[in-house]
Amino acid sequence: MADHSHGTLYGVGVGPGDPELMTLKAARVLAAAPVVAYIAAADGASLARAIAAAHLARGHVEIALPIPMAEDEGPAQVAYDEATEAIGAHLAAGRDVAVLCQGDPLFYGSFMYLLARMQGAFPVAVVPGVTSVSAATALSLTALARRTQSLVVVPATLGEDALAVRLAGAEAAAIVKVGRHLPKVRTVLDRLGMTARAHYVERAGMAGERVARLAEVGDDAAPYFSIVLVAPSREAAP
Amino acid sequence: MADHSHGTLYGVGVGPGDPELMTLKAARVLAAAPVVAYIAAADGASLARAIAAAHLARGHVEIALPIPMAEDEGPAQVAYDEATEAIGAHLAAGRDVAVLCQGDPLFYGSFMYLLARMQGAFPVAVVPGVTSVSAATALSLTALARRTQSLVVVPATLGEDALAVRLAGAEAAAIVKVGRHLPKVRTVLDRLGMTARAHYVERAGMAGERVARLAEVGDDAAPYFSIVLVAPSREAAP
Repeated sequence: MADHSHGTLYGVGVGPGDPELMTLKAARVLAAAPVVAYIAAADGASLARAIAAAHLARGHVEIALPIPMAEDEGPAQVAYDEATEAIGAHLAAGRDVAVLCQGDPLFYGSFMYLLARMQGAFPVAVVPGVTSVSAATALSLTALARRTQSLVVVPATLGEDALAVRLAGAEAAAIVKVGRHLPKVRTVLDRLGMTARAHYVERAGMAGERVARLAEVGDDAAPYFSIVLVAPSREAAP
Repeated sequence: MADHSHGTLYGVGVGPGDPELMTLKAARVLAAAPVVAYIAAADGASLARAIAAAHLARGHVEIALPIPMAEDEGPAQVAYDEATEAIGAHLAAGRDVAVLCQGDPLFYGSFMYLLARMQGAFPVAVVPGVTSVSAATALSLTALARRTQSLVVVPATLGEDALAVRLAGAEAAAIVKVGRHLPKVRTVLDRLGMTARAHYVERAGMAGERVARLAEVGDDAAPYFSIVLVAPSREAAP
């Protein structure tokens, strides 16, 4: 069980990209955290780090976690094990560690891999954040679900048929991680007759955000942080 | 089209209940808003108003909107029309109006009914917020979706068969607005063999929050703000 002399592992959602979309709680936790960790690219760049930059404590220690993002999960597993060791050393010494998580820590986030490894051994707390899906609906002014409507969230990385199965019959949908999968997403939505009620949202809640009807955007060069929203078919208000 | 001498209609997500789960942007917009509107019960009480209380501008004007919450949408329609008129008068006079929205304005929120009525006539902006679903996953430390997994969000107010259809085959699910529908939700999850991976979360992100395995809670007296999370069946990390 968690030892009370241990530090707490915080998963801190820093929101979709705009630093103002951080919560007051995230800002407070970060201002007090002696150790801050984040997933970083090979060159050390981290969007979560950039979002949180203005709120980090003076003199804090940083741990950049280079996690390989590949289809093969083996190298990532080793990297999460190493990250657990590095973070665990601080926690065991009584220092809180805040892991910066873009969006919400437990919504398609990497924090769950650290959580799975450290839960039980150390105290853990999660500060929820604004998701990229909420940022996308805000930018497009699209109400996805109301009253008795259901919403399907699905990653575009799925195969065409798997996407179609999950989206068939959906009253509303958010397709995340679109990027280079945009042509496939369009094909599936065309098949299902959903293209007319689909919006394409790029970099929602980040610099350079834009929104358009899916039918009006080309297939080329959607960034990784793009989302397709499928609005309910009846747009009428009560 | 929107006249630039008009005020802006802001839909401001104030998060699930803990005032610290408001965003920095929500706090900034509210501190500057000369007019604040919110849905209120017949006695004037408003959870969104309570969440935002510490951030409202000095000397602001308040508009409490008594919207009937009933199966019959007729009375609500009339109330939204009246709200549109009251809010529109301020916007037309050049005053910004912030509508306080618990959670996220466009995720099962009432703001969409005002948006539908005022979009085009006035400038509109939405400040996304932390949803009750994110607060529930944070409290229960439950990662709902990762990598290629999909997530179904469904309101418990649906009928038993409709719930079963939408949940069948879901890798992960969030069932919102549980309240008095808890026995029905349990019946559906039992039918689908999902109860073992279901968590019950009450008042997440609010005072008095609690979490338990669904199998360990009774059917009596779940509050309206309760959520059932169904975690993916394979809990293993990469």
